[in-house]
Order: sequence, then structure tokens, then C-alpha cells
Amino acid sequence: MVSKQSQKTKADVFLKLHRAPSIFVLANAWDVPSARIFEMAGFRAIGTTSYGLAASMGRHDGQQVTIQDTVALVRRLVDKINVPVSADIEAGYAETIEGVVETARSALNAGAVGINLEDSTRNHKLPLYDIHFQQEKIRAIRGMADTQGVHLLINARTDTYLEPSIDPTSRLSQTIARGNAYREAGADCVFVPDMGDLDPATMKALVEEIKAPINIIAGESTPPIAKLQEIGIARVSLGPRVMRAAFGLYQRIAREILHDGTFSNMLTGALSYEEANTLLD
Amino acid sequence: MVSKQSQKTKADVFLKLHRAPSIFVLANAWDVPSARIFEMAGFRAIGTTSYGLAASMGRHDGQQVTIQDTVALVRRLVDKINVPVSADIEAGYAETIEGVVETARSALNAGAVGINLEDSTRNHKLPLYDIHFQQEKIRAIRGMADTQGVHLLINARTDTYLEPSIDPTSRLSQTIARGNAYREAGADCVFVPDMGDLDPATMKALVEEIKAPINIIAGESTPPIAKLQEIGIARVSLGPRVMRAAFGLYQRIAREILHDGTFSNMLTGALSYEEANTLLD
Repeated sequence: MVSKQSQKTKADVFLKLHRAPSIFVLANAWDVPSARIFEMAGFRAIGTTSYGLAASMGRHDGQQVTIQDTVALVRRLVDKINVPVSADIEAGYAETIEGVVETARSALNAGAVGINLEDSTRNHKLPLYDIHFQQEKIRAIRGMADTQGVHLLINARTDTYLEPSIDPTSRLSQTIARGNAYREAGADCVFVPDMGDLDPATMKALVEEIKAPINIIAGESTPPIAKLQEIGIARVSLGPRVMRAAFGLYQRIAREILHDGTFSNMLTGALSYEEANTLLD
Repeated sequence: MVSKQSQKTKADVFLKLHRAPSIFVLANAWDVPSARIFEMAGFRAIGTTSYGLAASMGRHDGQQVTIQDTVALVRRLVDKINVPVSADIEAGYAETIEGVVETARSALNAGAVGINLEDSTRNHKLPLYDIHFQQEKIRAIRGMADTQGVHLLINARTDTYLEPSIDPTSRLSQTIARGNAYREAGADCVFVPDMGDLDPATMKALVEEIKAPINIIAGESTPPIAKLQEIGIARVSLGPRVMRAAFGLYQRIAREILHDGTFSNMLTGALSYEEANTLLD
């Protein structure tokens, strides 16, 4: 169990990462070894991924994990790694402000020093929560965290670039409006995940128009980190992409064994038994 | 929940795989997607890996998972995949015959149609359980499974090639003695994991001298599957090596991001979002 003092310190470190002039990359983990490998390599923060957690349990993403699953993962990570841990709480696993606050409180009590809170309803008829309702949730979470004396980092995610029913020509203006509204309500960072549509010019517009640090997700069309830094992006998340890379590797291993009867994809570049054990020390 | 009839059928399929003239490869999984990828590629059986399960929870191997953890994993796998699932129950998580039988019963009740039962005590002063005590466990497990009408495949693992305190010159004779004793007690297959010492000549001796199908683990020095088939090996397990390959990939991804600021190890060869989702359908 993490002490309250250590949690406060980690929360301050995590907040500073977002306000520093240099960009940082947050690796998303779904189990202890993936988190430990990123920490040992030098990553300065770890986030959970609801997609990865759901997938590891055989479920689809989209609030099919519970806050209990997330809390259990946060506890395991906080117990084993030293860098700040942020919890992906999706849309808060509740439809009321009180329910969302309780979810955030559970994450904080488990040792998380940050949360991702998204505005997707998962209902394509009305894809995003009302902007004022979302602001109220953010304000209430900030109030709850303040009474605990921890600056819980609120990463307000808007799904304007993910929801297929949103008119593409209005995505940028909606994102700017929501980003500034969430910031005004107390969010520390605004997260704009996309399916590959965030080109450098759009990123630049987000950085200039939203008065908050901007978090993007690394994908096929994402420029190198030096370029993202130049644009002014504050935080890059890896999301479930590390897990999907592992899936590709499992498939190559499986196909080679079945088709060629050899094991080179499994053995080449693997950690040794001894190296793997150091992850768990 | 799997029906008893379906479980009986899968148990018979699994037993036949061990008695067939052709070798088969069992992939070890620690979560649903790793198991599904191997099943979809064409693997005909999946086993759990206690190492992988322990590591995914941030623990070292060696009975640091519980039977409850294993049962939960078996249930998730049986729920999502159609091929036979075998449970790695280590040394049975108990020091008494009754305790080991209860562990095997839990695995069977969760839907497993096979178990791995090892003879390591994890105590280097007396590294392996007494051969007769181990036989009694196997007999008692067989009796328990028979009363349930399921031919639970008992893969009796002997750690003669793993325990550092065993005189290397006596490993082969001890393995043969234990293999035949476990077979006589009712084991269906004899599993001889190693750290790279099982050369083809030794494998051949095991196949000739032990009157049971032989299971080995694929490692750096393992010949191609065609050669293993020629030697007469019945079953090849992958053990925790797929997971260690993934660890190597995470490390390459992490280092490239930190050192080069690019994402190619993460993106090249990854499954797409859509492909990844089919794993969970």
C-alpha cells in the first residue's frame, strides 16, 4: 500500500510532467510485467488501458471492465512500480455525478495519481455527454481529490475524433470547445484520441486553441516525438497499441510453428529467464 | 460453463492427440487473447502456464499463484476457446494427497481436460517428492476423475533436468525411473522440461525407455518439429517462452521510443483494431 505522502509526491511529479517544456510519453499497461518493462526502460509514467485490461480477460472494450477490475490492476501496478500510475476509468462506470466521483475516489484510494475520464456515451444516437454535465463531473472529482489533499491529475478525454456519427467538418471546433470547457472545470490535460485523422496542422490548432496541455495517442500516422514536441504536444499515450503489437508477435510465432515447424519468432529477441525474473523483483 | 458431455468429448480428443502417430504442439497461455491467437492459428490444445499467470500478476513462479487464480484463468479460457484446455497446477498446491486431489478436482470442475502435475518440492535439500508419494497422488487423481466420468489427461512432469542439485550423470536414469513409475500409476504423458540439456540422443533414450508419450518444452537448442517427430516426441509445449518473447518486444518498443522517438516496433506487424477485436468475439 502506498502512503498518502508518497502518493502526494507522485501526484506532484505527474502534474509537473504535463507542465514541463518537454513532451513525455506515457506507456499504457494491462499487467505488471508490461508496466515494469516500460518503467525499467526509463518511462516516467504508466497508465492503465481499459482496452488491454478488457482484452486480457477476454472481453471487448467499452466499459466491459468494472471499476473493481481497474482498482485491482492499479493496486498491483502501484505495488510494483515507482513512477506515477494513472487509471483509465473510461466514462466513470456510472451515469450520475456521484457515481463517477465514487469511481474516481476508488482509483485514488488504490494509489492512482491520475485518471482518464472520457465523454463518450457509447450510444451513437447521442455520442457524447452534454458538455456541462461533463464539466460538473470534472468539478466534482476535483473537489473530492482536494479534500484528500492529492492533486489527482484529471486527463479529460474527448471522443470527438472517434465517434463515427460526428460530422468530420465539426470535429475540430467541437474538440476546442470541449477542451476549453473541461479545462475551465478543472481538468489538467485534454486527451484527443483519434483513428489517424490528427495531422500536424490539426494538432497545432488544438495546441493553440485549447488552453491546456494536449495529450494524443501514437498511431500509424503520428510523426516522430521530436516533431510532436515542436508542435507543442505535452503528452503522448501508447494506448492499447503495445498489446496489439504483442498480438501480432503471437500470431507470427503461431504461424511459424505450424507452417515451418521452427521457433525463431519465439526465441529471437526474447528475454531470458533471468532477465524476465528481474522484472518481478 | 462447459457441459459435462462437451468436456468428456474434449478430454477424449486431448487424449487422442497424445496417442496419435504425429506430434502436436501445445501453446501455453496466460490470458484469453494469447490463447485465442494460438487457437485461431490452428493449435489443437492450449495449456495454462503458472509462470505466465504469476508474472502477469507481478509475482515470481513457484506456487505463488493459487489454485483460485488458476481456476479463474481456466474458466475464462474454456469460456472463450473450443480446443482442449490443460491446467498447470504445479505441484498441486498442497502437501497431502487429499489436498492435491482437491486441486485437480477444481481444475476439472472449471472445465480443464488435462493437468500438469510436477514433482518438484521447491526445496533444494530434497528437490523431488518421493517417487511413491508422487505415484499415490497420480492414482488418487485418476480415481477422482474416473468417478466424474472424464478422462482427465495427467501430464506427469518430472523436474530431474531442472533441479540444480541433481547430479547431471544421474538425470537420465532418474527421469526414466520416474517416468515409468508415473505411467504405471496412471499418468498419460511424461513431461521432461529442461534448461537446454535435452539433446536428440537423450530425447531418443527417453522415448525408448519410458513407456509413455513424452512431452518436451521448446527452447533455444530444440530441433525443428520434423526432427522431434522423427525422434518420437509426442507433445511439445511452449511454456512461458511466448510471454518472454513478448517481454523482449515491449523492451524494443520502449527503447526505440525513448532513444529514437519513433514507434516502428510498436506499429509494424501489430494486429489492427478490427483484427484484435475478432479475438474477443
